[in-house]
Amino acid sequence: MENEFTMDGIIKTIIELLKLKKYSRARDEMLKNNTVEIAEILEEIIEELGIEKAIISFRTLPKDVSVEVFAYLPIDDQIDIIAGITDREIQYIMDELAFDDMIDVLEELPANVVDKILEKTTKDERRTINTFLNYPETSAGSLMTPDYISLRKNMTVADALAYIKKEGMDTETVYTCYVKDEGRKLLGIVSLRTLVVSDDHVRIEELMHEDMVYVNVLDDQEQVSDLFKKYGFLAMPVVDNEQRLVGIITVDDILDVIDEETTEDFHKMAGVAVSTEEYLDMSVWKHVKNRLPWLFILMLSYVVTGGIISSFEDVLSNVIVLVTYLPMLMGTGGNSGSQSATLIIRGLALGDVDTGDALKVLWKELRVSFLIGLVLSVLNFARIYWMDGEGVMVALTVCGAMLVIVMAAKTIGSMLPMGAKKVGIDPALMASPMIASLTDMVSVVAYFALATLILGI
Amino acid sequence: MENEFTMDGIIKTIIELLKLKKYSRARDEMLKNNTVEIAEILEEIIEELGIEKAIISFRTLPKDVSVEVFAYLPIDDQIDIIAGITDREIQYIMDELAFDDMIDVLEELPANVVDKILEKTTKDERRTINTFLNYPETSAGSLMTPDYISLRKNMTVADALAYIKKEGMDTETVYTCYVKDEGRKLLGIVSLRTLVVSDDHVRIEELMHEDMVYVNVLDDQEQVSDLFKKYGFLAMPVVDNEQRLVGIITVDDILDVIDEETTEDFHKMAGVAVSTEEYLDMSVWKHVKNRLPWLFILMLSYVVTGGIISSFEDVLSNVIVLVTYLPMLMGTGGNSGSQSATLIIRGLALGDVDTGDALKVLWKELRVSFLIGLVLSVLNFARIYWMDGEGVMVALTVCGAMLVIVMAAKTIGSMLPMGAKKVGIDPALMASPMIASLTDMVSVVAYFALATLILGI
Repeated sequence: MENEFTMDGIIKTIIELLKLKKYSRARDEMLKNNTVEIAEILEEIIEELGIEKAIISFRTLPKDVSVEVFAYLPIDDQIDIIAGITDREIQYIMDELAFDDMIDVLEELPANVVDKILEKTTKDERRTINTFLNYPETSAGSLMTPDYISLRKNMTVADALAYIKKEGMDTETVYTCYVKDEGRKLLGIVSLRTLVVSDDHVRIEELMHEDMVYVNVLDDQEQVSDLFKKYGFLAMPVVDNEQRLVGIITVDDILDVIDEETTEDFHKMAGVAVSTEEYLDMSVWKHVKNRLPWLFILMLSYVVTGGIISSFEDVLSNVIVLVTYLPMLMGTGGNSGSQSATLIIRGLALGDVDTGDALKVLWKELRVSFLIGLVLSVLNFARIYWMDGEGVMVALTVCGAMLVIVMAAKTIGSMLPMGAKKVGIDPALMASPMIASLTDMVSVVAYFALATLILGI
Repeated sequence: MENEFTMDGIIKTIIELLKLKKYSRARDEMLKNNTVEIAEILEEIIEELGIEKAIISFRTLPKDVSVEVFAYLPIDDQIDIIAGITDREIQYIMDELAFDDMIDVLEELPANVVDKILEKTTKDERRTINTFLNYPETSAGSLMTPDYISLRKNMTVADALAYIKKEGMDTETVYTCYVKDEGRKLLGIVSLRTLVVSDDHVRIEELMHEDMVYVNVLDDQEQVSDLFKKYGFLAMPVVDNEQRLVGIITVDDILDVIDEETTEDFHKMAGVAVSTEEYLDMSVWKHVKNRLPWLFILMLSYVVTGGIISSFEDVLSNVIVLVTYLPMLMGTGGNSGSQSATLIIRGLALGDVDTGDALKVLWKELRVSFLIGLVLSVLNFARIYWMDGEGVMVALTVCGAMLVIVMAAKTIGSMLPMGAKKVGIDPALMASPMIASLTDMVSVVAYFALATLILGI
């Protein structure tokens, strides 16, 4: 297992060597690591010394190593490296890269560079590449690779194994083999494990599973990753509208999809526009553009909240001490609502909770919020009456408001994401910022209305 | 691809049949689906008709199907089913279940049931099972299975393939084979793909990779899943402190770990105690227990905020209109801080941002927050001065406070998670509720201090 500390030390040594222009010694140091680690080192070089030094280091690597390292680099760094190497080097990398990795790079390259690369490919290859380039960014099509083992149902196990040996596929894509008919329609799947443990003369049609799970090229990547989680597959076939097999998706790409989808949820839940760019790579302007709209929209809701407060100015000016407890009530309301919203949003994402459970959820939240509200109210009564020395009426007002606010917040927090899901809006958008703005409004109304009532102003 | 609507229809039909006690017709309907789907149907039966009917349905399934279905059920349902079937049936399921699935079930069963099951196993099996039962819940050891193919380095490819054919392993665990020495020390790995494409007489030692990545039994599952993401492996070897191979972890189990870790982050970020139980399965008391502590702790922070407001009571009673804008300032502060906190927490989790980047992050947040604060200030000035018709001094106070608050909130929101990470606290705990409480405090101070200054009260 590599150790974070030794890794830091290795990177420092290499960066020092590069600063001294000792390129071949730097290369030797790099080659002591595996390709994933070399990619990490290159990322550090880009960050510390700039892209030029990184390109020099990259070009000192043996060709076969350089392709593997390239595959592990983040897409932005890949593009920067492409811009700094020769056409011949680009061509070599493109030829050796796994098909899905190549498509990812081509998607980000400027059109003229793509054209230059495509010039060197055969007509058939070009057609395949162009088809892949046209799948929507988050579709199953954009995740798949056309590199898979395809068999015929009348082959024997011996034929199949001989064919696999001849083809010599990538590690990831060989473990499930796909049986197609003459019209490229998917008939069934058979695992390499089955082939290896079966007798040579058995026919594929006797071994293949016909009730396989597959996805359509246009299915969303989130659906695809849900199926991988549900079935625990290593790979899944992708078909077009005519049920023809067009590619396969492997589980290692799904790990990235899951991270991407989670990040999307986190960002939505914080009221930040969704972006796949890394935090530090994003410009100040982009950050402002991603964050300002929601802050502005939420701010508008406070025009209403402010208006409500204005209408209670009489109460306020009579019992100015009420303002002291307002932030606590609003804050606790916001926090209570955001607890419920998060539990429900995550539950919906994992399929633990469904829109059909709305009444069950409501009933649970009402009981939970009543108990929590009660405990917090009692604690506050004690504090306000005995510690702060305020009158019993003020204490009662704050405590009553606390109970109402916690219950309202948890109801809003749980029901809003469910409602959103029901009408087809992403529930993640109904998270803390949105919920807090709404509960603030409710808090102000509940608090001052109760004050008017109890204090009789 | 199964369709949600047809699936709902099938479940309805089966439930109707079970209500009419037509068990064998219900079984025939169930058997038209794959095992993952049958597990889903059983879950629905438990929910709609209770565990008794589910157990009857489960027992009508063919033995081999029932084991597979059992493996796909959630752990709670597995335990309920175990409680309702005979010892002989339990024994059959335990014998046929994959080792890691069996351990998961045993971990949750009452001790007397576990003892009864262990009685029927051999001494060696019992020792292995007991070792596995003792690994900490979130360790690599708790995720691994001892079912893997182990080879010797002086075997030939033909020997190895013959051995695999004889052993006939589970689908998931056969694709990477492990080469050990006499002392069970891990020497290298070789993929089934390599074996299949290599010539029969080649020795394993010529084919095996010796620079493999492995984990220790006690490593945390989060570290393990990070390695899977980094390398894109299908399986990873687990060794003990003496470098002896004790098991392997397969990627399908990592998909569950990722979901679990994400849920943990979501819950921490909302100030809810971490729990693996599903929302609807958790009792009202458990929900209260999980949510009350943080709400209480955060509420305490508002004692300070309230105290600050009290000390400014003079300003307040003079310019009561200031209260109208307080919720907006606090709300926008909280939202701004939570945007930054979420971006940083997620960035830290994905490794995009590191504690060493603190100054870069601070500089970025200062510029972003200055721009956002400026825009929001100008908009507010317009609203307060022209629309609300307040004096220019009040408008200036609110706008000045807005700029200070947004900048402070984004600084706190970004720096607090980084500081937490630096001192070894989970950054996810520094999310919206915590940040909002702190920014509320800052907001109140900034607002009223500015008011005293500008309005000269």
